[in-house]
Amino acid sequence: MHVITLTTDFGTPDWFVATMKGVILGVNPRATVVDITHEIPAGDIRAGAFALAASCRSFPEGTVHVAVVDPGVGSARSAIAVQTLDYFFVGPDNGVLSWALRSEEIRTIRRLENEKLFRQPVSRTFHGRDVFAPVAAHLSKGLSIAKVGSEQRNYQRLSWPEAKRGRRRVAGEVIYIDRFGNAITNIDAQSLLASDWDRGRVCVGRRVIRGLKRFYQQAPEGEPLAIIASTGFLEIAINGASAAGRLKIKPGDPVTLQRPFGQSSS
Amino acid sequence: MHVITLTTDFGTPDWFVATMKGVILGVNPRATVVDITHEIPAGDIRAGAFALAASCRSFPEGTVHVAVVDPGVGSARSAIAVQTLDYFFVGPDNGVLSWALRSEEIRTIRRLENEKLFRQPVSRTFHGRDVFAPVAAHLSKGLSIAKVGSEQRNYQRLSWPEAKRGRRRVAGEVIYIDRFGNAITNIDAQSLLASDWDRGRVCVGRRVIRGLKRFYQQAPEGEPLAIIASTGFLEIAINGASAAGRLKIKPGDPVTLQRPFGQSSS
Amino acid sequence: MHVITLTTDFGTPDWFVATMKGVILGVNPRATVVDITHEIPAGDIRAGAFALAASCRSFPEGTVHVAVVDPGVGSARSAIAVQTLDYFFVGPDNGVLSWALRSEEIRTIRRLENEKLFRQPVSRTFHGRDVFAPVAAHLSKGLSIAKVGSEQRNYQRLSWPEAKRGRRRVAGEVIYIDRFGNAITNIDAQSLLASDWDRGRVCVGRRVIRGLKRFYQQAPEGEPLAIIASTGFLEIAINGASAAGRLKIKPGDPVTLQRPFGQSSS
Repeated sequence: MHVITLTTDFGTPDWFVATMKGVILGVNPRATVVDITHEIPAGDIRAGAFALAASCRSFPEGTVHVAVVDPGVGSARSAIAVQTLDYFFVGPDNGVLSWALRSEEIRTIRRLENEKLFRQPVSRTFHGRDVFAPVAAHLSKGLSIAKVGSEQRNYQRLSWPEAKRGRRRVAGEVIYIDRFGNAITNIDAQSLLASDWDRGRVCVGRRVIRGLKRFYQQAPEGEPLAIIASTGFLEIAINGASAAGRLKIKPGDPVTLQRPFGQSSS
Repeated sequence: MHVITLTTDFGTPDWFVATMKGVILGVNPRATVVDITHEIPAGDIRAGAFALAASCRSFPEGTVHVAVVDPGVGSARSAIAVQTLDYFFVGPDNGVLSWALRSEEIRTIRRLENEKLFRQPVSRTFHGRDVFAPVAAHLSKGLSIAKVGSEQRNYQRLSWPEAKRGRRRVAGEVIYIDRFGNAITNIDAQSLLASDWDRGRVCVGRRVIRGLKRFYQQAPEGEPLAIIASTGFLEIAINGASAAGRLKIKPGDPVTLQRPFGQSSS
Repeated sequence: MHVITLTTDFGTPDWFVATMKGVILGVNPRATVVDITHEIPAGDIRAGAFALAASCRSFPEGTVHVAVVDPGVGSARSAIAVQTLDYFFVGPDNGVLSWALRSEEIRTIRRLENEKLFRQPVSRTFHGRDVFAPVAAHLSKGLSIAKVGSEQRNYQRLSWPEAKRGRRRVAGEVIYIDRFGNAITNIDAQSLLASDWDRGRVCVGRRVIRGLKRFYQQAPEGEPLAIIASTGFLEIAINGASAAGRLKIKPGDPVTLQRPFGQSSS
């Protein structure tokens, strides 16, 4: 496999992403490069971490995932490559990889030290092009990760706002607003599947939503709904409109899910 | 050939399109995926249908065209794959494929029923990733379309606003505003080529434009012009500016083309 | 190598870029197409020329670079392909290629005349699809450039606003604002490297910035800084914010760099 994914805050109006691809193709002409997104808000490490975590497992084994949201480029922050059971992850060691790595089985973490792999001269401001792209391309060609640098034992983690789960109530928060205005929360579907939670109540701001829907059009147009969406998280949506816009929801807003009354266990 | 095109309303800020590509590459590592556009306004089936129809025939034979503008995802709407003389088309059966299919010679229409081809588990909210992407990838690898599901006789059609053609006058409307602000109409160039129509008058709102131009700079800068553009349709444009913006034109606005006086023939 | 890059003002909401890719893949199924950008402001030849110049040398030898910012499409402006020591360049002969060509060793310049290479029928409004894409695809397959048309001796050049270099002072201007709001100037890093310029003063508007930084976070958050960035040009930035926005900088604004007092030598 020769798949490399890119998650950055470089935007698409300029040429930054293209130069990464040029460098990759110079090292590995057979690479297939897939953009996850380049529209992470500038410097927003958490949004980059979420986008990567939400998408990385859709790719085939052996894929090299590169994430460059890197406000500290050129400073002392280190750069790493991580090999997991299924993938490689390459990026600054500032937390942007950490939410994806939460569900991976880690094999080894390496510092990017082998300057022979880098594009020369290495700029101080654009390691995406000069460091991360060529290292990813070498890994996609089968270079052993031991060649990129020495092992380190850990990596920077962003705190993940774990939902608080009680017997009758899960308290979480909004993590991400997508392009449709759907508000994705940190309330994980896994633990709700086997229960009667889907007849419960979802509270967001002053709004109470009764029951979980299974698809968007199950709700009348214009009416808020709660749903376990494609990311595997509980989501607040409006059929045919932006829930974030209409309900004035933003990342960090609390969301609670309560089980229906007069019932117990799963 | 292993070309797959994607036309969606998923936008590019999020990771939705990328996960479709990940799934495709998992099924067919040799696939070449081309984005037609992901900026169809959310749920706007007609805009998606037009973008696909305007571009699909630029692709080589055997291309698999996937269109996902799918507000009814998860509901009872069916999903189809269509084999034509030159291409495959895959998407929800809600009309989004129908304007492209108008000019195709259809071989067979199949319901997407064979769940072995799907990504498991199939979500209720993201068939782009879980159904359409893997089915398209299998077709691009040469899977017989008979394997995707049973035949159905017809497909959902969006009404196409046919231009009304008289001996001296064609009455049509604006179909699409492109990024330059050019207003593309439903008045088809084919039927005008052999005539004196190009010396006629084009009326849009209160504006009268005399004669058709052959390229944009044939008109003085800032002046409205009418032209048979690259889509094969009559278009209202302004050299160096947005016609839609300046003339306040929007989809659905009537446009008429009148032949010059005192002449007859073809 | 089969790499083709695209730099256009076509935008991504419509299907224009996709049709170029479809035509390319029809001619050369093994082509790898990389988008440099499609968000050049409509008709802004200088912005297109800068994006191409800033990125083209990141690509491997043999890459075919296509740039289509072409307000004169269909008019008498000619279309060219240029072979240099390392690359091919294809586009309208209106200057859009000229800033990239400044640092290339030119082998031959050819007019695009061989209509057998074009997509038929050739529209008058979309040479990106009908002329530039198929010619680029043929070149990427190894077609001799002599086959595209007759040689011409020169090409249209955009004036490049050369920075004025004195013994103690370099006077330049802002060339481009990138997506982070960094203001890229025409003051070239090459000639400053071996000197004490990096302890000098940068003046932009009424703002004076002391010394050059080596990376963005070397400046306190919110404070303007000057830096030799990844393009190799002096850049005005703000750590964590948009310099163009906060300092109201735009292309064409003068920027001067003065050496520190009481010192001489290079």
